[in-house]
This record gives sequence, C-alpha cells and structure tokens, in this order.
Amino acid sequence: MAEKITPRSQDFSQWYQDVVLQAKLADYSPVKGCMVIRANGYSIWERIQGDLDRRIKKSGARNYYFPFFIPESFMKKEAEHVEGFAPELAVVTHAGGKKLEEPLVARPTSETIINSMFAKWIQSYRDLPLMINQWANVVRWEMRTRLFLRTTEFLWQEGHTCHATPEESEAETRTMLGVYRDFAEEILAMPVFWGRKSDNERFAGALRTYCIEAMMQDKKALQAGTSHNLAQNFAKAFETKFLDKDGTQKFVHQTSWGVSTRLIGGMVMTHSDDKGLVLPPRLAHTHVVIVPIMPKPETKAAVVEAAQKLRAAIEADAAVKGLPYEIGVLVDDDDQKQAGWKFHEHELNGTPIRIELGPRDLEKSTVVMTRRDLGVKEFVPMADVPAKIARDLAAMQKELLEKARAFRDANTFEIDTYDQLKEGVEKGGFFIAPWCGDSVIEKKIKEETKATIRCFPLDSNYEPKKTDKPCFYTGEKSEKNILAIFARSY
Amino acid sequence: MAEKITPRSQDFSQWYQDVVLQAKLADYSPVKGCMVIRANGYSIWERIQGDLDRRIKKSGARNYYFPFFIPESFMKKEAEHVEGFAPELAVVTHAGGKKLEEPLVARPTSETIINSMFAKWIQSYRDLPLMINQWANVVRWEMRTRLFLRTTEFLWQEGHTCHATPEESEAETRTMLGVYRDFAEEILAMPVFWGRKSDNERFAGALRTYCIEAMMQDKKALQAGTSHNLAQNFAKAFETKFLDKDGTQKFVHQTSWGVSTRLIGGMVMTHSDDKGLVLPPRLAHTHVVIVPIMPKPETKAAVVEAAQKLRAAIEADAAVKGLPYEIGVLVDDDDQKQAGWKFHEHELNGTPIRIELGPRDLEKSTVVMTRRDLGVKEFVPMADVPAKIARDLAAMQKELLEKARAFRDANTFEIDTYDQLKEGVEKGGFFIAPWCGDSVIEKKIKEETKATIRCFPLDSNYEPKKTDKPCFYTGEKSEKNILAIFARSY
Repeated sequence: MAEKITPRSQDFSQWYQDVVLQAKLADYSPVKGCMVIRANGYSIWERIQGDLDRRIKKSGARNYYFPFFIPESFMKKEAEHVEGFAPELAVVTHAGGKKLEEPLVARPTSETIINSMFAKWIQSYRDLPLMINQWANVVRWEMRTRLFLRTTEFLWQEGHTCHATPEESEAETRTMLGVYRDFAEEILAMPVFWGRKSDNERFAGALRTYCIEAMMQDKKALQAGTSHNLAQNFAKAFETKFLDKDGTQKFVHQTSWGVSTRLIGGMVMTHSDDKGLVLPPRLAHTHVVIVPIMPKPETKAAVVEAAQKLRAAIEADAAVKGLPYEIGVLVDDDDQKQAGWKFHEHELNGTPIRIELGPRDLEKSTVVMTRRDLGVKEFVPMADVPAKIARDLAAMQKELLEKARAFRDANTFEIDTYDQLKEGVEKGGFFIAPWCGDSVIEKKIKEETKATIRCFPLDSNYEPKKTDKPCFYTGEKSEKNILAIFARSY
Repeated sequence: MAEKITPRSQDFSQWYQDVVLQAKLADYSPVKGCMVIRANGYSIWERIQGDLDRRIKKSGARNYYFPFFIPESFMKKEAEHVEGFAPELAVVTHAGGKKLEEPLVARPTSETIINSMFAKWIQSYRDLPLMINQWANVVRWEMRTRLFLRTTEFLWQEGHTCHATPEESEAETRTMLGVYRDFAEEILAMPVFWGRKSDNERFAGALRTYCIEAMMQDKKALQAGTSHNLAQNFAKAFETKFLDKDGTQKFVHQTSWGVSTRLIGGMVMTHSDDKGLVLPPRLAHTHVVIVPIMPKPETKAAVVEAAQKLRAAIEADAAVKGLPYEIGVLVDDDDQKQAGWKFHEHELNGTPIRIELGPRDLEKSTVVMTRRDLGVKEFVPMADVPAKIARDLAAMQKELLEKARAFRDANTFEIDTYDQLKEGVEKGGFFIAPWCGDSVIEKKIKEETKATIRCFPLDSNYEPKKTDKPCFYTGEKSEKNILAIFARSY
C-alpha cells in the first residue's frame, strides 16, 4: 500500500506536498529550488496550454520564441525593472570555454529582450497593434521554494503587445484580465476575485497591474495571473517608436500578461482532499477508470471482455462526444494488484469517475459508478453509462467551481477596523476593508499581520471601487477611500 | 515592394537567409548566436510539435519537464559525454546576488539530470520500461551559427527511455528512428536516408547512434534526427539500477532520441524556390488565400462578399474536412495593397493555394486557382473549388516529397574510388562507397574533402550493409567492408 497523506486539518502544507509527490505531479530535483514536472503533472499543463493557447490566439496574439539569455545591460535600461528583478537573476559569465564580454542573465521575464526586437520590427502605425505570446521557461532565484507555487525555474506564457494609443493598451490589459478570469473559472474550476494591484505589489516597470486572486482551502490567497499596462516605460527605454498617421514619431503603448505552472498548485489546493488529487474533468488525461472485479479465475475473462466492450462503447458514444474534450477511458485489468489497491490509486491520482464491474454486475447488466469528488456509489444500467458519464463530467466541472466559490464566499469578510483584520487573519480568509491608499501603512500592516493587499476590486469603469466609509486603519473619511482585499498569501 | 530574394543559383546560402528573414520565419537577436522565431516560423514548429507529439505518445512515452540547469559535476560523470559537450557549455556562476557553491550549466541535452531522477524512480523490473519525452530549449555554444540550422539556443524534443534488456533498448532505438523517418517524409515531405553513424560521428556517451539524413537543394546533407542506444553508459555513471525478476540488481539499458527546430531549416532548403517559401500543406497555417480583384469601387462589395461566401463554403465542405488537418482560409481584402503585391507576399510566405476572384469570374461563376509549387493558373467552376482544394493539397503534399526524392536520387552516386569522391563533392551530392571502417582515414578524408560519413545504410537486421567490393580509399577487399554514404553537410 502507498504512503499515507497527511490530513489537511493536521498540516495543510504537508498535505499539499504529500498530494503533489504521491500523485506523481512533480518531484524535487538535485538542482536547488528547481522541480521536475512528472507525467501526471505535465499532462495537466498540456491541457492548460491547449485551452489557454486557443483563447490567446482568439484575442489576436500569435506565438513567437525569444532567447532565454538576456544581455545584462538590457535589464538595467528600465530603472524600476532592474530594481525589482536584480536580486533574483541567474548570471552566465562563461560560455564556450571563455569568459563572456558581457554577462547574460537567464530571463526572469522577457520585456527587455522583446522590446529590443519590437524596436526593430515596428516602423509605422501600420505595424500596430503587434500582439505576441510565448510559452517558455523562466528563472527567478528564490530563497524559499515550494513545488509548483514558487520554484527557481518555472514554465509560463508571457504575452507582450504594442499599441498606438494609451486607450488601446489599457483595453488590452483589461481584455487579458478577463481571459484569465474566464479560463480560471471555466477550466480550473477555480473562482477568482479580480482587481488592480497596489503600487507596492505592481510589476516592476508597469504603470498598473491587474490580477486574479484565488482562495486556497487553507483560506490563503494565491495570485493566479497578472496583466500589466506598461504604458511607455519600456518603449522609452528601448526606443520602440512608430511613425503615426499625423507624421510624428511616437513611443508605443504596451502591455504584458502571464500565467504559469503555479496554476497547477492552485488547482490542487482548491479542490483536492485527504484521499489525494481531485481533478476538474477539463484537466484530466484519464476521465474514467473501469476496474474489473475478478474474484475467481473462471469469471475473469468474461469480466475483462465486458470492461473492454464498455470502454469501446463509452468512447464511441455520441453523448460523450458532445463534451468539449476527448474522453480518456482506462481498463485497469492488472491482476498483480487488488481492486482495493486500484481504488486507492485512482483516488490518489484524481481520476474523475470510477466504474466497478464484477461477475454479478455482469449478470444484472449494471455497473457501480463513483464520482471522485462525491465518493458515493451508484448502480447504473450498463446501457446508460455513456450518457451518465457525459452528464456526470459536466456536472462535476460545474459543481467543483460552485463548491469552491461557496467556500471562498463563506470566508470573505467585510471589515471596518484593523482589529478585525488582526483577529481575522489568524483564522484565515479574505478581508474587504475601506482603505486610504497609504503605501507606508500598507507595509506596516504587512509586517504586523503578514497580510497584503491582494487587489482593489473594480467598478464598471475598471477603477478601484470608492467607499464613503472611513479607512479601517486610520479611521479617516476621504473621497479617495477605496475598497481593498487583504489576505495572507502564497 | 519587398526586397529581392537572391536566386539559389547565385548564392544558395544568401538565398536561404533571404527566404527565412523575408518570410518572417526568424530574425537575428541581440544575443550572439541566438535567434528569434517569429510567428510564421513558430506556427510551423507548432505543427511539427502537434504531429510528432502524437507519434511519440503512441510509441508509449509521456511528457515530463526537467530543470534547465544541470550541476556541473553531473556532466563529468560520463567520460565521453563531458568530452563531447564541455566546449559548448554555458555556465552560471552567480545567482540571487551570490556566487554559487557549484556552477550550473545550461543543458546541452538532458541525459545526466534525467538519469539522476531515473535512479530515484526506478526500483524494480515493474518500473520498466520507463519512457519519457520533453519539449524544451537547449544551449550549445556554437562559434558559427545559421538561422534554424545551428543556433546557440534551440528548441527540440528529447526522449529518454529505460529498459530491462539490451534487446529492448536496441529495439526502442530503431523504433524511434522509424518514427522520425516516417514523420520527416509524411509531414515535412522530406525524403531521408537512414542508417548508423560512424564512431567519429556518434553521440558523446552512446553505444551507437542511428540517424536520418536529408539532401538539401545545394546537394549538401542535413542530419535531421538521431536515435541513440546508450547501453548502460549513463546507468553506470548514475547508478540507475533495478531489481530484476531473478532477484539481482542490474543497470538499466537506455536510449535517447531527438529532433529540433533545425527541421524547419531543412524543410525550407528542401522545397523553397526563388520566389520564397514553399510549404508542405501539413505545415501550413493558412492553406488557401482568396484575393478579391477589385478594379472598380462599384463591384468591390459584390466581389468581397463572394470571396467571403467561398471561404465559408470551403471551411464547411466535407471534401476539405476529409483532410487530416484543419484548413485555414484567408480572404485578403486589404484595399491598401494591390493584387500583384498580395500575390508576391503570399508566394513569399508559402501559402499553398491562391484563389483570384474578380467581377468577371463572378459573372461566369469561376475562379482562378494557383498551386504555390506549380505556379500554373487554372480556371475552376466555383462549385468545384472545395473538392479541388482537398485534392490539390493532398497532391501537393505527395508531389513535394516525390520531387525532393527524385532530386536526391538523381544526385546520389555509387562510387568505387577516392578520386570520384574528390571530384564529386565539388559538384555536390551523396556518394555511396565501399568502406573499410578506418577512423583515421575517415578523419583524413574529412580534412581533404570536407565530406563526412553521413551514415552506414542498414540491412534488414539493422546492421551496416556489407559489400564485397574493395574499400574505395585503400583498394583493399575485406569481409568487414561496408557501404558508407559520404557528403558535405550542414
């Protein structure tokens, strides 16, 4: 039998690590802070890529690939950018047996190298908008790492766009925020709050940063995606200019936006339980496992044959074909393993639906079906199985989102005083507070409570929502007071 | 109007560069030896990935992701491996603001880091075979680079498998050679010779290397994919052992195999012409461009509407749906550009089929269709267009392969003397010669002629084909004499 998973109630952090390691999503590598993504984890990433790539292309961007190495001097061209990333850089000083004339850094993000190309490719307004995306590995030297959530190297997509006007770049920033929000909810079944980051939390080099924030089962926040309006900051640093219709040279207005393999960690911490991984069907590789129950050698052949027939029937069925993804069905007929061991293993791996099929089921032409998230056995006539699978998978995808949203909402509190925050964060949750906007106080709150502003919720104009309540910290009323969501975070 | 492409007959190397740059497949980057893959080039890579990934998974491998950085000491564990790759390594000495205790190298290939994980994951024969693949960037510090063909950083897939017996690892090595051969011919329409590498040319750390070799239009060879039987070399260096059924500990038997973005360069040099890119339909993003001919403002609306209707009809048609890929149809109705300019641009970009549709065609319910590789205009009744497109695209895919094969075969010569090789290589081609197998002579021939042994063709047992002819260099007969293909190469 496999190792035991630490219950969430006992040690959430250890539970997370147990699930990730035992479900073989990832493993520690011999390189400090770098992980190995194993087949079960990478197959989730492939599904994330497949769906998100389609959304990104639909938004008008095309995929490119830029160099992994960036000349060190490029990083220094935008003042805030170098300040933000300098402590996390990995530096190549030697290559091909020689010392390099200029050191190269491993990309922590690609605004600089991409702008050096934009400056070459963009001449006139006819070249705009230019919207590119890349799927790549990036490196940020982290002191404290955690599988998927924070690793020295990670995989991500980064979009970079150039526009003729500030209105267009702001609109693109918001569009991609919406793409991420819809993707997180529809595919990861992970409900998110979205909003704008405070100046303390915004991307190094951006005018403003928008984000999506999810609540994990330990009631901590996870930043799950960001979309930045870069204004002309990088354009000015790299001379990315265009000849406008009015005959004058102007700097382009830019955006960048990204999500990473961190999403896999967020998905695990949103849905999984003490038996292991719970996987939204949209992210599953194998959706249905059929376990033939083979108590006697003389009935084995008939049971396995029926299981194979059922698999073929499920794969061929129109009801299942109506799902927006290809369905994976596995017959687990390995007779080296007991049925109980298989149940345990497929629960651990998060297979959404389990079907048991034994000699007596065969006589009655029924099977036993169990949905991973509910764990309740149902007797289902064999002929109804494909249609029920289509219904159950669609329902599971929907209900995982609803369940996570109910959990988040039950742990999101409107507060009026700093004492409420100090008390609240110990139990966990999101705290929506009236806020004066003072960066110095924000830092003090972080030091005292370990809670940060996750985002400012937005009004219909995408501006932080105003409030006429007094600031929860200073007690002062002001026309500038807005709402802020505070929480401890990953 | 765009820049002119240098004719192949004038300067093949300049022609290649002109096509790659002007068709916007790739561009030079500010990082020495590293290229930027632009949208038109990356979209080819996505199609290569999509099809090959399916074949790799069908062969039984699953995708993983391993760290980009490898501890320097790992590279040194396999003696031949470090000797082969040491001159090409890029080394990270500093990270996170500190000097590293042990330098990290950018992966030139991942046998070492992957074996460190195999050693952890594999315990018993039940864990075998273990077959993994990864899509990744790799770095080899090159002195002389050329877009796609040889760059300091490139994208590839690398498969790594572990088996219980030498028979199984040899079989897997050959299986993947076959996968690469079929893929190259069916998707890239690039005919290949396949065979075994000489000891001088084999992978650093392998027992034997198999390869596929294609002939470019300048009659030089391009190594397009390799499959290595690593025997137990890395297993011994990393202690990758398993408990076999007989109760004893044994080292696993391994393979590795890879193809890279180099394939894009090979595809360009196989099919393209003096007008630009010629793209096999399996690699195209846009398969059909419809250019509305709009000589007068009063007929413009009707022509554009008919073009849009035709696009919809093509996309909806069952004949086109029978193709093994989704068809891309573009209506190029940009009235800032002349029709002639558009013809030129789509020829440059390699769009497989062009349709012209003007007011007079509309009256007669016909269109003018031109296949990119043939350049011959045909008048086609509107109603026949979708079925003809399906036929033409399938025919073009097939005929590009046949044309390239005919070219290669016409430039492949059986020779008996060294003088024939010395004379022959000046005009180019592949030279099949009886060969004694002496490595020292092999090096001498390379120095004198710049030709190398591309591979030893194989008999039905996958052994180099024997010949009873005397060695073309020494003039000596021997039972050991085999056939070798000599050529200058990229």
